[in-house]
Amino acid sequence: MNIYQKEILLVQKPRGFHLISKEIISAIPELKMIRAGMLNVFICHTSASLTINENADPDVRTDFETHFNTMVPENTEDYLHTSEGPDDMTSHIKSSILGCSLNIPVTDGELNTGIWQGIYLCEHRNNGGRRKLILTLTGTEK
Amino acid sequence: MNIYQKEILLVQKPRGFHLISKEIISAIPELKMIRAGMLNVFICHTSASLTINENADPDVRTDFETHFNTMVPENTEDYLHTSEGPDDMTSHIKSSILGCSLNIPVTDGELNTGIWQGIYLCEHRNNGGRRKLILTLTGTEK
Amino acid sequence: MNIYQKEILLVQKPRGFHLISKEIISAIPELKMIRAGMLNVFICHTSASLTINENADPDVRTDFETHFNTMVPENTEDYLHTSEGPDDMTSHIKSSILGCSLNIPVTDGELNTGIWQGIYLCEHRNNGGRRKLILTLTGTEK
Repeated sequence: MNIYQKEILLVQKPRGFHLISKEIISAIPELKMIRAGMLNVFICHTSASLTINENADPDVRTDFETHFNTMVPENTEDYLHTSEGPDDMTSHIKSSILGCSLNIPVTDGELNTGIWQGIYLCEHRNNGGRRKLILTLTGTEK
Repeated sequence: MNIYQKEILLVQKPRGFHLISKEIISAIPELKMIRAGMLNVFICHTSASLTINENADPDVRTDFETHFNTMVPENTEDYLHTSEGPDDMTSHIKSSILGCSLNIPVTDGELNTGIWQGIYLCEHRNNGGRRKLILTLTGTEK
Repeated sequence: MNIYQKEILLVQKPRGFHLISKEIISAIPELKMIRAGMLNVFICHTSASLTINENADPDVRTDFETHFNTMVPENTEDYLHTSEGPDDMTSHIKSSILGCSLNIPVTDGELNTGIWQGIYLCEHRNNGGRRKLILTLTGTEK
């Protein structure tokens, strides 16, 4: 088994949910050589996160933003950690609910995902800046 | 280190939370040969998910369904993505909250889980059909 | 690629969110030898969980406890699984929302996390006792 590791910096995205499958796949061309393996995608931040969900209708991504703003509301007196603004503590919470690390099987040189599955960057801050990802690919080669 | 990868298709389950540890273990008999390793279970869908929780009292699985229906309610005007019915967008959201990929340590030929831990299929759709899983087992052999 | 696997037992922690990065790193000194790899941290319980979030301001951890008690409330008649007290079923649900398994990239002998990221034990029970973790480290050596 071999291992490949890459660090990538995404372009800045606005608050919300964004499809980033293409950026990830193009950053790790060694994927094409893997017969069977695993890709880990890790985001090095505590106020943005990663998930896998529908890659077709963009309304799904809008509805994710709507739901998470309802489930983790900013208009509350509940939080102590408020010095960076109302979107700070809620971003930490959303990040842990969704998670910072994805493991995706790789088969015959491709991500072995369902036809509707895409990788989302979940940007929870109003101005999150560029986000750093670590890609770690392990597997046997063809 | 070696790697084994299998694709399995579960029988259709009704909406709700279901223990599937036995189906998974029986689908990958190579598990018994692994001294130390990792099993990844990945579901190739965006409206069902996977989690690990209590394997004994079936009331726990019923209470999961109750809680997720409250936390991600269908009776809302909030969503744009509604063409497939009220259980569609909520299923996408529940799927991302719970996740589509599990990593479980393997030790001496068995899943190294706690005594109360079982693997759940979380079927969020009213009629989800058969669900496809990819099992990826890596590790050193005995 | 090599693999190292350790079992550790944390000292008992009170209900709430606790930074445990140091306990984990010190339990697996083989980390320093890894050039590129992956550390999996798995908790063998269904009423405590693991997440990665801010390692600096302790108010963040307090706010996590506040939020999860609101999002998964104990003062409800909704649950069937109540024999172990009001903090039992809610602990199972919180555990599945946050997850029991973390995958963290390892680079040049260190966890390749962001500067603000720390590993949390999320203790959801009032008296959870000591919690068992399985650490699985895979990678190539320097």
